[in-house]
Amino acid sequence: MHDLLILGAGPAGLAAASYALRKHLDVQLVARDLGGKTNLRVEFPDTQAHQVLRAHELVHGFRNTVEYLSHAHTIASAKSVTAHAGQVDLEITGGTGVTGEAGASRTLSARCLIVATGARPRPLRVPGETEFFGKALGYSSISYSHILAGRRVFLVGDSQRTVDDARELAWQAQEVVLLLHHAGRYESLYREQLAELDNVTLIEGMQVSEFRGGDYCEAAVLTDPEGSEEVIEADAFFVQLQPEPQSALVSEMVETDPEGRIVVDMRNRTTRPGVFAAGDVTNVGFEQILIALGEGSKAALSAYQYLMHRR
Amino acid sequence: MHDLLILGAGPAGLAAASYALRKHLDVQLVARDLGGKTNLRVEFPDTQAHQVLRAHELVHGFRNTVEYLSHAHTIASAKSVTAHAGQVDLEITGGTGVTGEAGASRTLSARCLIVATGARPRPLRVPGETEFFGKALGYSSISYSHILAGRRVFLVGDSQRTVDDARELAWQAQEVVLLLHHAGRYESLYREQLAELDNVTLIEGMQVSEFRGGDYCEAAVLTDPEGSEEVIEADAFFVQLQPEPQSALVSEMVETDPEGRIVVDMRNRTTRPGVFAAGDVTNVGFEQILIALGEGSKAALSAYQYLMHRR
Repeated sequence: MHDLLILGAGPAGLAAASYALRKHLDVQLVARDLGGKTNLRVEFPDTQAHQVLRAHELVHGFRNTVEYLSHAHTIASAKSVTAHAGQVDLEITGGTGVTGEAGASRTLSARCLIVATGARPRPLRVPGETEFFGKALGYSSISYSHILAGRRVFLVGDSQRTVDDARELAWQAQEVVLLLHHAGRYESLYREQLAELDNVTLIEGMQVSEFRGGDYCEAAVLTDPEGSEEVIEADAFFVQLQPEPQSALVSEMVETDPEGRIVVDMRNRTTRPGVFAAGDVTNVGFEQILIALGEGSKAALSAYQYLMHRR
Repeated sequence: MHDLLILGAGPAGLAAASYALRKHLDVQLVARDLGGKTNLRVEFPDTQAHQVLRAHELVHGFRNTVEYLSHAHTIASAKSVTAHAGQVDLEITGGTGVTGEAGASRTLSARCLIVATGARPRPLRVPGETEFFGKALGYSSISYSHILAGRRVFLVGDSQRTVDDARELAWQAQEVVLLLHHAGRYESLYREQLAELDNVTLIEGMQVSEFRGGDYCEAAVLTDPEGSEEVIEADAFFVQLQPEPQSALVSEMVETDPEGRIVVDMRNRTTRPGVFAAGDVTNVGFEQILIALGEGSKAALSAYQYLMHRR
C-alpha cells in the first residue's frame, strides 16, 4: 500500500508530488499526461515565446522531477475511487507503469489521496474550433492579458466570470467584443458594468457558428435565430464557457459545491479525512498556475501531517 | 484613496502586490523592507549558494517588480489600522515614500487591505545567538533539510512542530539532537514518536545558555537547573520556538486563532469584508515560500473581486 495517491498532473498535482517526494512519502501520481492544461498554450502572431509567465518554469522543474522518477508515476486513466477505513483504492486502466501490463485494469491502494484533476474547458463544438486551437484561439484570456495590449479580442462566455474578464481585458486591449450566451448566469448589473467601458461591445442573442482563419484564427462567424450572419474579426479569440471540474470520480465521497467543484478548507482538506484536493477542481477558483502550485504544495503537506499523526 | 493597501513584503506581500499591479489596481505596499524572512538565509560550511529553493527566484522576480515601481511601495512602520464603512486607514511613521517627509507620521487610506506581516521567529536571547545567526544557526530547519543530509543537527523547540521537524530531519540527517522546553505543547505520544528513531537524541530539562563557534556556530552549551553543563557539537543549529504571528495591528478587527494567527478561508478572506490575509500571519501554517506566493496571489485576486463588485 502506498502512502499517497495523487490524481492529476497539472501544476497542482506536480507540485504535490514534488513536495511529497521531498518528504520521503511513497507516492504514486496517476494522470493521463504530465503538465495538464499548461501543455495547452496559445500562440499569437507577432508575439514572442518568452512572453510567458515565470511560473511555467517552476511547473517545468516539478515536471522534470516527476518524469525522472518513473517509479513514482503511472500514465493511466482513473476508473473509480473507493475509500474505507483509512484506505483509498483507485482502479486504473489503459496505463503503463512499473508493474502490470499496459492496458490492463488494476487497483492502486494508499492511505490518502490528493485529487488534482483540474477543470476541463468546454468547447463550443463548431467548425474551426479544434483546428485553430492554440493558434490565436484559446479557452482562457486571463493568462494572456499582458500580451493582448492594443489588440482586438473576441470572447464568448456564459458566466459573470467572462463579464469580469472582459472588463479586465478592457484595460489593456484596444477593443473587446463579448458574446454572452442567454443561458448563462450573470450579475443583475452586468449590462451597466459593460456599458461603462467604451471599448467593449456586448453582443447577445447570437451564437458562434464557425471560426475562420489562415495560419491563425482570424474571425468568428456569428448567427442569430433568423439565420443572419455577422463576421467578427479579431487578433485573439477565447471560448470561455464555464469549465467542468473533473470531480465525478469522488463526488460521492466528498462535498462539492453547486458547480461541482470540490469544497476545501484553507489547508486543502476535503470533507473526508485523508482525502485532499488542489487546483482548478476545487472551489478556490482563480485558475492561476502560481496559485495551483501553492495549493498542490499545501495539499501535500496536509497529507503529510495526516499520515504523520496516524502512523 | 488607494484601491488596496498591502502590509508586509515577504513572499506573500510581494506576490500580492505583483498580482494587484498586473490587475491595474492603485496599490500601496507598506513594509519595513522588501523580502521579509527570505532575506534571512542561513549558510553552512561546505555547501554551495546554489543549493537553494527555486521558489527564491520567483520571490526575487516579484521583488524586482515592486522595487522598480517606487510609487507603489512605502518603506515605513505601520502604527495602527482602523476600518469603517468600506475604508481602511493605516497610520505609518518613520517611512520614506513618494509623498510626505521621511520620519513624519501620516495616514494611508484604501478600499481594502491585505495583511501579510508574517510571523517573527522568537529568539532564545542567549550569548552567541545574534552573532552566529546566518552562520550555521537559523530559525527553521525545514527549508534546509535537503542540504543537511549526513550531518549532525541540533534543534531546540517548544511545540509539536519541532518534534515533527526532528522526525523528518531524521530521514536525512546523520543525527538529530533535540532539546524540548518543558513549557511547550506536544502530543501525548511525542516521546514514543521520537524513541522509534535511533538517530534522534531527546534532551529535556535543560536550557541553552550559549552558542559557541568560530566562523560558524559549532556548539550549543546546555545547562540544567543545578548548573551542570553539557556541550553539544553539531553542523547546524536551529532555534525553533513557536514564531509570533504579527497580527497585533488587526487583532481587534478580524478573528484570530488561539495562537494569534489570522483566520482565513480558502480564498484568503478574513472575517471582515475587505480585509484579506496571506502567508505566515494566517492559520494556514506550513511556512513555505511557494505556498506563501500562492496565498499572496489568491489574496490579491480575492481583493480584486471584492473591489470589482463594489465599484
